[in-house]
Amino acid sequence: MNETPNPPSRNPTTHILKVSAQSSPNSVAGALAGVLRERDNAELQAIGAGATNQAVKAIAIARSYLESSEFDLVCIPEFIDVEIDGKERTAIRLLVERRPRTAA
Amino acid sequence: MNETPNPPSRNPTTHILKVSAQSSPNSVAGALAGVLRERDNAELQAIGAGATNQAVKAIAIARSYLESSEFDLVCIPEFIDVEIDGKERTAIRLLVERRPRTAA
Repeated sequence: MNETPNPPSRNPTTHILKVSAQSSPNSVAGALAGVLRERDNAELQAIGAGATNQAVKAIAIARSYLESSEFDLVCIPEFIDVEIDGKERTAIRLLVERRPRTAA
Repeated sequence: MNETPNPPSRNPTTHILKVSAQSSPNSVAGALAGVLRERDNAELQAIGAGATNQAVKAIAIARSYLESSEFDLVCIPEFIDVEIDGKERTAIRLLVERRPRTAA
């Protein structure tokens, strides 16, 4: 559905999860944790305050799901332009990466 | 105003910026970039979808403000309980940290 016009700086194999205001943070968190058990990074895309909020909550929940793993998660937010039904919208892209846990 | 009841795991010198739905992302970004030019980390606190959205936008903008510096920003979201006017609320805490830029 969405097309991101600026993929050059992005790893083309990044796994993208689209989040809406109606998304369940727990479900997104489960999907995100599942992806990050297999890969180094994933990407959440959200348009609007409600969607961005669900995406951030999902990352917080995914961190708790991965509490017993050897890595924590960090996220890097940025703006991207996406085209939806021919209209350009500004979305938030949250690149989520693994980070090794430091000793407590 | 707000009290965070669980500071033990937190660096007590972390600089906290409280963000509301009415906060200007550009202003918060300016404050955040200013703090992170001087220190390794800062913390944004937001309650509600509108506030969380402004906080995430502020981090994205702060990253662009720091584009010419030797470090980028990452954020680590988590839930915290805060007390406001005697009522317990769940807030989002976004710990923002510097990260050295990797070679392009």
